[in-house]
Amino acid sequence: MKLAELTVKAFTDELASSSPAPGGGSVAALAASLGSALSSMVGRLTVGKEKYKDNWESMEKVIESGDALKDRFLKLMEEDTEAFNDFMAAMKMPKDTEEQKAARSKAMQEGLKKAVQVPLETLKACKALAEIALTAAEKGNPNAITDAGTAALLAKAAGIAAAYNVRINLGSIKDEAFVSETNQVVKETLDNIFNLADQAGKIVEKALG
Amino acid sequence: MKLAELTVKAFTDELASSSPAPGGGSVAALAASLGSALSSMVGRLTVGKEKYKDNWESMEKVIESGDALKDRFLKLMEEDTEAFNDFMAAMKMPKDTEEQKAARSKAMQEGLKKAVQVPLETLKACKALAEIALTAAEKGNPNAITDAGTAALLAKAAGIAAAYNVRINLGSIKDEAFVSETNQVVKETLDNIFNLADQAGKIVEKALG
Repeated sequence: MKLAELTVKAFTDELASSSPAPGGGSVAALAASLGSALSSMVGRLTVGKEKYKDNWESMEKVIESGDALKDRFLKLMEEDTEAFNDFMAAMKMPKDTEEQKAARSKAMQEGLKKAVQVPLETLKACKALAEIALTAAEKGNPNAITDAGTAALLAKAAGIAAAYNVRINLGSIKDEAFVSETNQVVKETLDNIFNLADQAGKIVEKALG
Repeated sequence: MKLAELTVKAFTDELASSSPAPGGGSVAALAASLGSALSSMVGRLTVGKEKYKDNWESMEKVIESGDALKDRFLKLMEEDTEAFNDFMAAMKMPKDTEEQKAARSKAMQEGLKKAVQVPLETLKACKALAEIALTAAEKGNPNAITDAGTAALLAKAAGIAAAYNVRINLGSIKDEAFVSETNQVVKETLDNIFNLADQAGKIVEKALG
């Protein structure tokens, strides 16, 4: 069954269980999906209101991106759990002969790369989320300013959590060039997210006085 | 229908809609529920494993608190949306006569106090979440260290978001003593959450190297 088809209550129960998946990687993606949906909501509370007419065009783009990101993050939530389960399946492959050991090791390395790539996609998409959350804070209906701020907070928290998942899995990958390149992308993307989310946070703080 | 009974997908769709509730306050509570469930999971991945026997007692407490907080935050998620809807209902009360105006104003002030109290409860519970997330980072199964870290990140993000919702509603409350006291509680609780979550973050960073 897909995680997105569980009720919210059942999802939290499944998460709390002793099964390691879904775990932090899927939760990062879900938190980012919630932030995307909030950004879309701010857009919809802005477009159509005469008072904010100058911002309609920007906010229409926020709605479009927010809706797409919301669903993309839900997919990443599923993929993160699948990647973990694939890696665990590789771990359980037989290792009696040299041939089996080599096949198991190869499957584990492939599984790990997937377990890096999924949270890396989540991290990159969190940058896109931080961008629309900032626009929502700047140009959205001021009555929904704290919703835009919440979206930015989730982009940052989900981004750091996704980066945790990339980094912990990188630790077991032997391809050094891949590890080094990926670490660089993580660092740069997180810097961008912090910058965008902190700008949004300042706008909210100013509005709250 | 209760929000917790929606599927995850339906919840994100409802959130993205032009209806202002559920909004950031309910999302803060949901994010905190996810962090609570992750903390419980780390507990369950620790207790029973001989290697971590010295930490079983601490982690049993994390499981107990995590499970209770998970459900408490889901209730706060519902209550935040109810409080908003109650306030909107008060706003729509008739205001043709002086008597009606007074009744509407009284109902609005009462609605606002509820709209402050619900996120204030969420904020306080986020401190309890940050406490167990820190214990999970310190004493949980090291294989789940990023899950504990994610729980701490969510405690912080949800705490700030809950504080946004307290503060924006305080802005319309006329009872100055209540406003001043509440602002003080918000500040102190956030300071505590930051301290706990940042300690957890440092433990995760150290483990990730």
